[in-house]
Amino acid sequence: MARRPTRELILSTALALFNEEGLAEVGSVDIASVMGISPGNLHYHFKGKVLIIEELYARFESEMRMVLDAPVNNPLQLEDNWVYLYIIFEEIYDFRFFYRNLGWVFEKIPELAPQFARLLRAKEGAFDSLVSTLRGEGFIDLSDSEADALVQRLTMHYTFWLPHSDLRFPDMASKALINRGVYAALIQVIPYWSENKDGAQRLLSEFFEAQA
Amino acid sequence: MARRPTRELILSTALALFNEEGLAEVGSVDIASVMGISPGNLHYHFKGKVLIIEELYARFESEMRMVLDAPVNNPLQLEDNWVYLYIIFEEIYDFRFFYRNLGWVFEKIPELAPQFARLLRAKEGAFDSLVSTLRGEGFIDLSDSEADALVQRLTMHYTFWLPHSDLRFPDMASKALINRGVYAALIQVIPYWSENKDGAQRLLSEFFEAQA
Repeated sequence: MARRPTRELILSTALALFNEEGLAEVGSVDIASVMGISPGNLHYHFKGKVLIIEELYARFESEMRMVLDAPVNNPLQLEDNWVYLYIIFEEIYDFRFFYRNLGWVFEKIPELAPQFARLLRAKEGAFDSLVSTLRGEGFIDLSDSEADALVQRLTMHYTFWLPHSDLRFPDMASKALINRGVYAALIQVIPYWSENKDGAQRLLSEFFEAQA
Repeated sequence: MARRPTRELILSTALALFNEEGLAEVGSVDIASVMGISPGNLHYHFKGKVLIIEELYARFESEMRMVLDAPVNNPLQLEDNWVYLYIIFEEIYDFRFFYRNLGWVFEKIPELAPQFARLLRAKEGAFDSLVSTLRGEGFIDLSDSEADALVQRLTMHYTFWLPHSDLRFPDMASKALINRGVYAALIQVIPYWSENKDGAQRLLSEFFEAQA
């Protein structure tokens, strides 16, 4: 017998199915069927798929906010930046169905659009802290406009890397997808590096070749 | 009496409505109603909304390909680059409903996904030509990995700028949206500029402040 409450099992099953099959393709009945429970039992816990999605979104947002707020509250050490960039991507990847189905979500659950927009601004806040810290400590050298544009670009990158990759690299495995996404985020910082740009570029390339 | 054939009027009305109201919200009956023709008359020309969307996509792709192939066939002069970056955005903006409803489109018309992916690679080819020409003529100085990443980034930027802006700048007027999109594309090239980066940055900022 499962020890986890049914409600939690419904959420984790729905998350796995939404991520694998896509939001439009999976209904409440499919979730109940995979779990081996009756649609009535599922309905007792969640009166419809929309309520399941809303609960998953609430959990995603609260996990993401914890991650995003970290460098705003405590500036990162230089060497922690790349780990941090991984962690955000992994969090997004865990709930990738949102990023791959934004249009569907906003059409069916319009109230999630402003919430997602607020989360986007929290991402922007986190990247702003990262860039400000690197600038303040003299690691990178760039104008205010360039710093703003870099922060915007990183925010957009983290939001649309998955739908972009679905089109551009449809067969890429998940780990490579995340590696490549982090690499694409980091390589834009290289030209602003104050000292030894070539060394930084070489380190970055070697690191990611080792991961691939 | 309208002189343009009904078929063309259906397409231009559908394009305007899809752009204004969104793909999910507009049906064949709405298009017929705005045109003041009967649903039966519309059905005679297009047997369903999907066929209208497919025809609009075919026209969009053929227009975009003409634009995108231009610098591949004939390298641009330096001063033509920003006009070119505008033209691509304007083309995308004319058919913005595709970019704002990619998920909906691919769910309802799966065969458009590989076509859109091919168009994405054509965008990549155009940006690759731009960057290669600037490198070859010594205007910019960057490593092969940085050039690849810049090309990828521009491609992604042009594909996801509209859905990103819908979330981040929901009230921005269309002209400002395009200006800002071109600015965000160009400012990433500044740090690779071989000579007088500050001058290039100043020109870019002044130009876009004048437009705003």
